[in-house]
Amino acid sequence: MQPGLSLPQHTLTLSAPAGGKQGAGPAITHSRLENGLQIVVIPDHRTPVVTHMIWYQNGSADDPPGKSGIAHFLEHLMFKGTKAHPKGFSDLVAELGGQENAFTAYDYTAYFQRVAKEHLATMMGFEADRMTGLILTDDVVAPERDVVLEERRMRTDTDPAQQLNEAVQASLFPHHPYGTPVIGWGHEIETLDRGDALSYYERFYTPANAILIVAGDVEAAEVERLARETYGRIPARDKPPRRFRPQEPEPRAHRLVTLTDAKVEQPAHERVFLVPSYTTAAPGEAEALEVLTHLLGGGHTSLLYRELVVEQKLAVAVGAYYMGTSLDATRLWIYAMPTPTTTLEQLDDALDEVIARLVDDPIDEADLQRARTRLVADAIYAQDNQASLARWYGASLATGLTIEDIADWPDRIDAVTADAVQMAARKWLDKRRAVTGFLLPEAVAA
Amino acid sequence: MQPGLSLPQHTLTLSAPAGGKQGAGPAITHSRLENGLQIVVIPDHRTPVVTHMIWYQNGSADDPPGKSGIAHFLEHLMFKGTKAHPKGFSDLVAELGGQENAFTAYDYTAYFQRVAKEHLATMMGFEADRMTGLILTDDVVAPERDVVLEERRMRTDTDPAQQLNEAVQASLFPHHPYGTPVIGWGHEIETLDRGDALSYYERFYTPANAILIVAGDVEAAEVERLARETYGRIPARDKPPRRFRPQEPEPRAHRLVTLTDAKVEQPAHERVFLVPSYTTAAPGEAEALEVLTHLLGGGHTSLLYRELVVEQKLAVAVGAYYMGTSLDATRLWIYAMPTPTTTLEQLDDALDEVIARLVDDPIDEADLQRARTRLVADAIYAQDNQASLARWYGASLATGLTIEDIADWPDRIDAVTADAVQMAARKWLDKRRAVTGFLLPEAVAA
Repeated sequence: MQPGLSLPQHTLTLSAPAGGKQGAGPAITHSRLENGLQIVVIPDHRTPVVTHMIWYQNGSADDPPGKSGIAHFLEHLMFKGTKAHPKGFSDLVAELGGQENAFTAYDYTAYFQRVAKEHLATMMGFEADRMTGLILTDDVVAPERDVVLEERRMRTDTDPAQQLNEAVQASLFPHHPYGTPVIGWGHEIETLDRGDALSYYERFYTPANAILIVAGDVEAAEVERLARETYGRIPARDKPPRRFRPQEPEPRAHRLVTLTDAKVEQPAHERVFLVPSYTTAAPGEAEALEVLTHLLGGGHTSLLYRELVVEQKLAVAVGAYYMGTSLDATRLWIYAMPTPTTTLEQLDDALDEVIARLVDDPIDEADLQRARTRLVADAIYAQDNQASLARWYGASLATGLTIEDIADWPDRIDAVTADAVQMAARKWLDKRRAVTGFLLPEAVAA
Repeated sequence: MQPGLSLPQHTLTLSAPAGGKQGAGPAITHSRLENGLQIVVIPDHRTPVVTHMIWYQNGSADDPPGKSGIAHFLEHLMFKGTKAHPKGFSDLVAELGGQENAFTAYDYTAYFQRVAKEHLATMMGFEADRMTGLILTDDVVAPERDVVLEERRMRTDTDPAQQLNEAVQASLFPHHPYGTPVIGWGHEIETLDRGDALSYYERFYTPANAILIVAGDVEAAEVERLARETYGRIPARDKPPRRFRPQEPEPRAHRLVTLTDAKVEQPAHERVFLVPSYTTAAPGEAEALEVLTHLLGGGHTSLLYRELVVEQKLAVAVGAYYMGTSLDATRLWIYAMPTPTTTLEQLDDALDEVIARLVDDPIDEADLQRARTRLVADAIYAQDNQASLARWYGASLATGLTIEDIADWPDRIDAVTADAVQMAARKWLDKRRAVTGFLLPEAVAA
């Protein structure tokens, strides 16, 4: 078999913030090997360094029922050996002066190295080798499962805020697997064995399920040639793996989750709304939610900060976050920490009022312009960091977006109107769509 | 192939309430055909009538992910035709003067007819025929799906109490499928097609997955002979179907679900705790929960009634229910309706106090004795109704219990001590294990 390279499908330039004109952003290419592996090249010639990432389009939300944590567990196991590299290749990356890491998210799992550009082919060889050659024996699997269980214990058993967040997410997503933490539930991690790891690996670690992202001091043609010589040797599989997730029914009732724990020193409030993502939203709606979130909770000029921290002095901190890059319906998240004399109920009522005013009162045009400008500027600044730019592309493509979607995102943000923001607030910041979380010290609850 | 009948495995007598002595209850037999079909015969010679039930050990909690409602949908489709009975057999049952029905629950699906005893063999022939001969064409499947969708709309869209209950169950079981309503979520029912129905039917409608229960004016030997001649002709399958349900992680945070709707005329309060079932509990624990539930909410002498209705006049109705017959961890459910001048928060606080006192204060021996006596007496009375007795056996066996478990249940209830009740209350009526539901008219929420 002689795998080849199909022609590059796209060459795009990220537009500059103002007016949607083609700007000085990098010329990004997107192509595909015959075995299905996608290749995205993001040239960046400022330093002789490359960021090499391989993204698998499976995350914790693709864990089979009852096997929660398997995506993250397999990410750990990927650092074990192959025939070619019986102890893995981490030491080899370090010897070459490189950095490496990996992460598992709800919708994807990614591995990356940052190395001097002359080592790119070596990194590709390493990753291609462990895409098919991983050796999974009980000797390897069982001790690593204990490592993951300890990681979970460290993260949740000692941290009530993390426990509350798990319970809030579970209440927001009783049906969809986003309700299960990425690391998995402890009682299910305990049951994961070699057979689970192997069948998961064989199902998802395939070239057609992978996206190679190379950012740095390289040209597309060279990256594609190297990819063909390494990843291209991996035979194609019959079909790419299917992602199947049950979707949430329309929520009808607000849910309040209260966690009280003696270890809590600072009470906290969170409110999470079930909202569409960039992948699931009607045109313009995700962008309106993005601007809305920034207006509400982005920095010290935001509505929540001005109202709850500065004016009413109910909170010491507030913020908002829209998890827009998500394969399925997602979360818009507002958090606040009360002052010592404020109850969470008071904070909750004040938050409801800010949201109600956002829905009913005219939006200040200066606020809106500042939000749009800031969002686009942040995206432009992100291009300055090779790794964050590569992550942006990887996360977008792995959740079903295209590089065109990334390229024209600034224009779409610039086009968000006050009406669109208000319609999004009215439709999606409906309390019936939300879960509120209260984190309280034990004494207050008693 | 000549399927045969294995020897009866058990002949048991339900004990009378007092002192665990063998009483006048019926001699129940439990046997199994070679193709795996279980047979339970409950003789009852008072009238020349039989209740014929066939129980399949699959319910809505066995619906494949994303296919919620398929168990219930198939129950509907089972009333469509076979080659032998192209229009089903409902008219034939009616012509013989019989009654029939079916029901789908979380853990099982059951079909039954009540007929004069001479028609038992005919009923067995009918049920055996549709265990393997169901004809599922698109002509049959598509219109029936619309019927089910309409059933769901009628039941939930017009009933806020039902909507709240769905949201409460979803919050109690974010991981386990008991969080999904038996009828399914509307957006998933819409997608169920002939292929789904057929593969579900082939997977679960097998002799090894079925339990035949015959109660009435019959003897075991005769029932077994008739079963061999009807059900016995169905070939065995390779393996009985596997039931797989992800289990809940240990809950750590109380959840309050609030549904406000203009259609609500009477506000209502519910509190549901995640507790073990008869199938999952440690020895004696389910019985303690049963007695505890009766003490709390069983009738006008219960703690909740005396405190919330009679003494404090906060509620017009209260009650409690333990869903003990359940394959997996289950629900202990307390409900209350406030008086017009009482808020749900006041009712909630008063309920917390009653539970706290049950945990901390000595239990009145007379109350305890009354609860135990009443529970056992109710079970004895249930024997007087052929259909309810048959249902008790079917539900118990389909959730993994044995006929011995049923037979010695009165003795186990009689053995529940005040200490056991208090330990169960302390361990299981922990608010972190609970979801509270508030049903409110729109105006109150605004």
